[in-house]
Amino acid sequence: MKASGTLLLSFSILAAQTAPPAIEGFLPESGKRQAEIEARFDRMLDRQNFQQWMKRLSAKPHHLGSPASKETAEFIAAQFKSWGYETKIETYYPLFPVPKTRLLEMTAPVRYTAKIEESAVEGDETSSIKAGNLPVYHAYSTDGDVTAEIVYVNYGLPDDYRRLREMGIDVRGKIALARYGASWRGIKPKVAAENGAIGCLIYSDPRDDGYFQGDVYPKGAYRPRQGAQRGSVMDMPVFPGDPLTPFEPALDPNRAADPKKASTVTKIPVMPISYEDAEPMLRALAGPVAPAEWRGALPITYHVGPGPAKVHLKLEFDWRLAPAYNVVAKMAGAEKPDQWILRGNHHDGWNFGAADPLSGMIALMEEARAIGELARTGWKPRRTLVFLAWDGEEPALLGSTEWAEHHAAELQRHAMAYINSDGTGRGFVNVQGSSSLDLFSRQTARDVTDPQTRVPVLDRYIAARKVAGREAEFRVDPLGSGSDYTVFQHHLGIPSLNISFSGEAGGGVYHSNYDSYDHFVRFVDPDFQYVMATAQLGGRMMLRMAGADWIPFRAGSTAQAVRTWAVEVKKLADDLRGRTEKRNELIRSGAMKLAADPRKTFVVPELEDEVPFLNFAPLDNAVLHLDRAAAAVDKVDPSKLEAARRKTLEETLRQAEQKLLRQEGLPRRPWFRHVLHAPGFYTGYGVKTLPGIREAIEQRLWKEAEAQIVSTAETIERYAGWLEAAAR
Amino acid sequence: MKASGTLLLSFSILAAQTAPPAIEGFLPESGKRQAEIEARFDRMLDRQNFQQWMKRLSAKPHHLGSPASKETAEFIAAQFKSWGYETKIETYYPLFPVPKTRLLEMTAPVRYTAKIEESAVEGDETSSIKAGNLPVYHAYSTDGDVTAEIVYVNYGLPDDYRRLREMGIDVRGKIALARYGASWRGIKPKVAAENGAIGCLIYSDPRDDGYFQGDVYPKGAYRPRQGAQRGSVMDMPVFPGDPLTPFEPALDPNRAADPKKASTVTKIPVMPISYEDAEPMLRALAGPVAPAEWRGALPITYHVGPGPAKVHLKLEFDWRLAPAYNVVAKMAGAEKPDQWILRGNHHDGWNFGAADPLSGMIALMEEARAIGELARTGWKPRRTLVFLAWDGEEPALLGSTEWAEHHAAELQRHAMAYINSDGTGRGFVNVQGSSSLDLFSRQTARDVTDPQTRVPVLDRYIAARKVAGREAEFRVDPLGSGSDYTVFQHHLGIPSLNISFSGEAGGGVYHSNYDSYDHFVRFVDPDFQYVMATAQLGGRMMLRMAGADWIPFRAGSTAQAVRTWAVEVKKLADDLRGRTEKRNELIRSGAMKLAADPRKTFVVPELEDEVPFLNFAPLDNAVLHLDRAAAAVDKVDPSKLEAARRKTLEETLRQAEQKLLRQEGLPRRPWFRHVLHAPGFYTGYGVKTLPGIREAIEQRLWKEAEAQIVSTAETIERYAGWLEAAAR
Repeated sequence: MKASGTLLLSFSILAAQTAPPAIEGFLPESGKRQAEIEARFDRMLDRQNFQQWMKRLSAKPHHLGSPASKETAEFIAAQFKSWGYETKIETYYPLFPVPKTRLLEMTAPVRYTAKIEESAVEGDETSSIKAGNLPVYHAYSTDGDVTAEIVYVNYGLPDDYRRLREMGIDVRGKIALARYGASWRGIKPKVAAENGAIGCLIYSDPRDDGYFQGDVYPKGAYRPRQGAQRGSVMDMPVFPGDPLTPFEPALDPNRAADPKKASTVTKIPVMPISYEDAEPMLRALAGPVAPAEWRGALPITYHVGPGPAKVHLKLEFDWRLAPAYNVVAKMAGAEKPDQWILRGNHHDGWNFGAADPLSGMIALMEEARAIGELARTGWKPRRTLVFLAWDGEEPALLGSTEWAEHHAAELQRHAMAYINSDGTGRGFVNVQGSSSLDLFSRQTARDVTDPQTRVPVLDRYIAARKVAGREAEFRVDPLGSGSDYTVFQHHLGIPSLNISFSGEAGGGVYHSNYDSYDHFVRFVDPDFQYVMATAQLGGRMMLRMAGADWIPFRAGSTAQAVRTWAVEVKKLADDLRGRTEKRNELIRSGAMKLAADPRKTFVVPELEDEVPFLNFAPLDNAVLHLDRAAAAVDKVDPSKLEAARRKTLEETLRQAEQKLLRQEGLPRRPWFRHVLHAPGFYTGYGVKTLPGIREAIEQRLWKEAEAQIVSTAETIERYAGWLEAAAR
Repeated sequence: MKASGTLLLSFSILAAQTAPPAIEGFLPESGKRQAEIEARFDRMLDRQNFQQWMKRLSAKPHHLGSPASKETAEFIAAQFKSWGYETKIETYYPLFPVPKTRLLEMTAPVRYTAKIEESAVEGDETSSIKAGNLPVYHAYSTDGDVTAEIVYVNYGLPDDYRRLREMGIDVRGKIALARYGASWRGIKPKVAAENGAIGCLIYSDPRDDGYFQGDVYPKGAYRPRQGAQRGSVMDMPVFPGDPLTPFEPALDPNRAADPKKASTVTKIPVMPISYEDAEPMLRALAGPVAPAEWRGALPITYHVGPGPAKVHLKLEFDWRLAPAYNVVAKMAGAEKPDQWILRGNHHDGWNFGAADPLSGMIALMEEARAIGELARTGWKPRRTLVFLAWDGEEPALLGSTEWAEHHAAELQRHAMAYINSDGTGRGFVNVQGSSSLDLFSRQTARDVTDPQTRVPVLDRYIAARKVAGREAEFRVDPLGSGSDYTVFQHHLGIPSLNISFSGEAGGGVYHSNYDSYDHFVRFVDPDFQYVMATAQLGGRMMLRMAGADWIPFRAGSTAQAVRTWAVEVKKLADDLRGRTEKRNELIRSGAMKLAADPRKTFVVPELEDEVPFLNFAPLDNAVLHLDRAAAAVDKVDPSKLEAARRKTLEETLRQAEQKLLRQEGLPRRPWFRHVLHAPGFYTGYGVKTLPGIREAIEQRLWKEAEAQIVSTAETIERYAGWLEAAAR
């Protein structure tokens, strides 16, 4: 079965290469014209610009609130203007803390003062720049002054604390030392605080992005010993954006900047450190040896503590409002100016930010420039194009969230899709987003050539999946969080995509001073080949969305995805039931205790409540309904409709994804309103599909699970009903 | 299904605890008497002896050919004599090389001279003893003087070299640097030579038994930076024992000691080194970064080379015959003196050898002493007991192999079982051996109490399996190689067992100078509790075998095991066929090439020949036949037979396992004659069941696989026929 399936698919790739390429949303004739326009677009793209823009924009620290932040926004705005866009800078004033005091010292059993500084590196020009440099810290850590013994908590996830309890380790009153990885960083201080820790340190273990992975910078691409990962620790799975103004734009520059009113600021102080700073602390820990899978690549025996390593951590921040400068550049549509296609990338970085975000930003700029040039030679987009350069993405998706909250009503009235990027690397195409754009994305990937192998980027993608033993199919995976699409996809229900290339540009300079021009051109994308491919992909998406005869959405893909996820959550409950029964039996029979080493502390965990059978029927029925409705609407041939009906139907479909929002949002986080996906409450970036149901099961909230099955099913039914109405 | 199965089993454990314990081979009345004798035996065991004997015997290096080797044998012999055993020392003269020259130096890109010496460690009394100390080396490495660049080959297994070829790395003319682990050490130089390497170094990566696993000696139990693992590298999967006298005893002390006549000596020079010595070499390697799963725990980026690290390795050995002193102690059976029960453990160590072999040796001695005491108080074994203390196990199972080759005919005429130990640790009971002794072993484990938890050692074993998610059943796993049972089980077809406790005494001093009394009492078995449990287990086995009314073999267990293995080899062929098809498709379609990073060398592997469908019918028929025959013979109630018939039947069953030998042996290694199991040709210690068939499939020798199915099936049919004849 498998083998012949694989065989079939490789034929279909060949077929795709030789058949005239259909383009979703285009009639055959206009599809041909579109292909010509895209070919012209490709020819207009100029690699020289990438090099110049990246060099210029990465020359100084350009984070939110820095002098260069405004310069950057103004430079980008000036470019857009010069290319013929109606451009403005829209400014918001979110809360943004910068450090006043950062002190970390080990006081026992030996003294050690952490350097928490990234020194200059040979051959990296910007690494010696001190002016305006934002030090190593976590944005939205609370102020704090704590002294306590350390406990090593591995990745700092709920399961890690469960394991610690089994080892008899109590983290209450302690400082949790976690390593980066396995979750978004903001989850670590949150879970540490939930478990009673009074402070948190997060270090980059060389196992995860240092010498274990490859040679370190400047010899190779990986994190050097003094490298540390800055970043936000705000509780963004509750809501992103300005912590003082959820749901509302932060328009007032004169509000009080009071962190006590910000519910998403961490409960305990937290700071990132390098492995150079972490090693003396880890080396000084006693207590049980850490479980095998907790151990990193430092040349030590990892113990969990607590102590005798004891540290003093003092953090004070300047809590102030910072201006976030968003650049908004429009080119009005010639036929359907009220339908907007949005394309965004942020411009702020953690200091020099070459890969993140500039590699994506310069691709977007070049797309806009080439489209401007096309427009000057007579071509006009049917729909309105909006290019967006966001500020303040790094601290908390501030620019995009405040802007989209500000323009929420307009956006829901006009936006057809939001296409995001956030830097790019070398390797394989990567498209995440709304399932309705599955075919659209697949076709775009089919029509962009991989710069290294000269085959369609789709083919390399499929090849990699085959070799990995995965289904040889193109899939737009659902979005979690981690970039500016969040407000569009999860809060406003605007179909979104996030594009990049990745997989062959490994490295460990993420959110460090070493994410620089020099590092980028040596290790990430030496000739800007993949920045070019990103521009080809993103630009094509814009040109297709803007020029299509018909809205290129497929409800069938959404229906298929929902069906898959429904199967998953049912399996999740069944598996959890099986695991719970098995585990409880091991506890009750005494086997768990007997199997443990009597010379080590082992606290037998408590019995878990049994997993009840849940009534999934409402979900199953909704899935069935959606299947039928999607099939009906996908069957409609718009070319056979009269103009007015066609217009109504397109508008209906444009709005359809908004019907997947539920007004009251997810439990305990009303800002996240999409019932099909959300960032995980305990994963941060990682997506949870059917999140209301899935997280209730994961968190063993059986009543909530039942209620979420009902409300999720209702929402899907409403969406199906909306599609059905459209099809009629 | 699983959960209720698990539940049932925990009931049956309870049942086993409360029901009167049946003992295989005993009628109810004599079973009761036997239980009383065993209780007396237990009371006679004296822990003081363990401490005294281990201290005494580990005080000096006592390897083969050392002055202490003879002293040790004589001391043990004197003890046996004093306990009433008819004791002698039987001496053989195998080839045994010791180093004259050991030189290892890195000549480029920097100079480094390897220390290859284990320095003294604080708190370890014997580690400072130099006299008689055998240096760090590999026994039966060939002499050699080579200079070449290094290639890091991971564990040095055939798959590792395949991976190197894909990376474009050629090891011909190079020196392979392998790490210990994943196979028996002797496989590494053999495979290195097969791939054209001219020398081999094997180091202990701290990932595998050093600081990654736990604190290093003397703080903890694990291998310190200067620790290295001595050991044999003779090609023992071909045949163990004296390399000059396969099949024959090495009786002549005056033969020429010519290594050129020894086919099992390595083809290239090889030496073990510490990670202290390996680190500068690994650090100096360039070339591709090693695959993730190849990387160890040194604080470096692992590259594979070749070079620029270049080393000069010079090894010269003194090739001489060494006297191997086996101690043989007999207590004649009162009723059936012609049926022998053998119990062995070796007495030679790599220097001090506290855990390996003395922890097992002293258990055996205490068993013999207590049984001697029993005999003095009027109890007599029905069958003859033979206690054996082997010399020269470490270099190549020399003492046991030569002795058993010498006494082969007698042994096949008299031996009922061979029970081996080779040291013991703390933790869970571990019985490997002939499947026919499954129930016998299970019942013995049921009747020994775990010293830490005070439950039967069987219950802890079952608990550990349940927690690991494995079938909650006791299983005697088949024997590969690695200790003195080899000649008995695989060459002579004498049902064998190997017993130990393990799983909770981790450590990294195996075959180093630090396997000492001090290490043992601190980290392995501080109060000799598990040495005691080993004596209780081994002694019980001897007492039961010696005292049983009836031979305690169950052919049904063998039949069940063979059925399982037959399913496995068929699945092996099917899986290999599926994998081959998939892989070939990835190669043919170009996917494998497309998925590879174009900036790294990737040599697409050649297409593999397809796996034909094999005719397993002869094997299936033999399995069926065996099932029936075993059921018939196990149904026989010996108490209902008249004495003469009973005697004939018992004798028939005693010989049965010999029917599983095939005279011509396995392909390319005629010494290994058992068709059900053998040490793997490419694993060394690791067992291969149905080895003729399994290894032919693994090595893609389809004709041989077909022939081996036929000949294995014939042998199983003959065994089944033998059982059937017995049952009639």
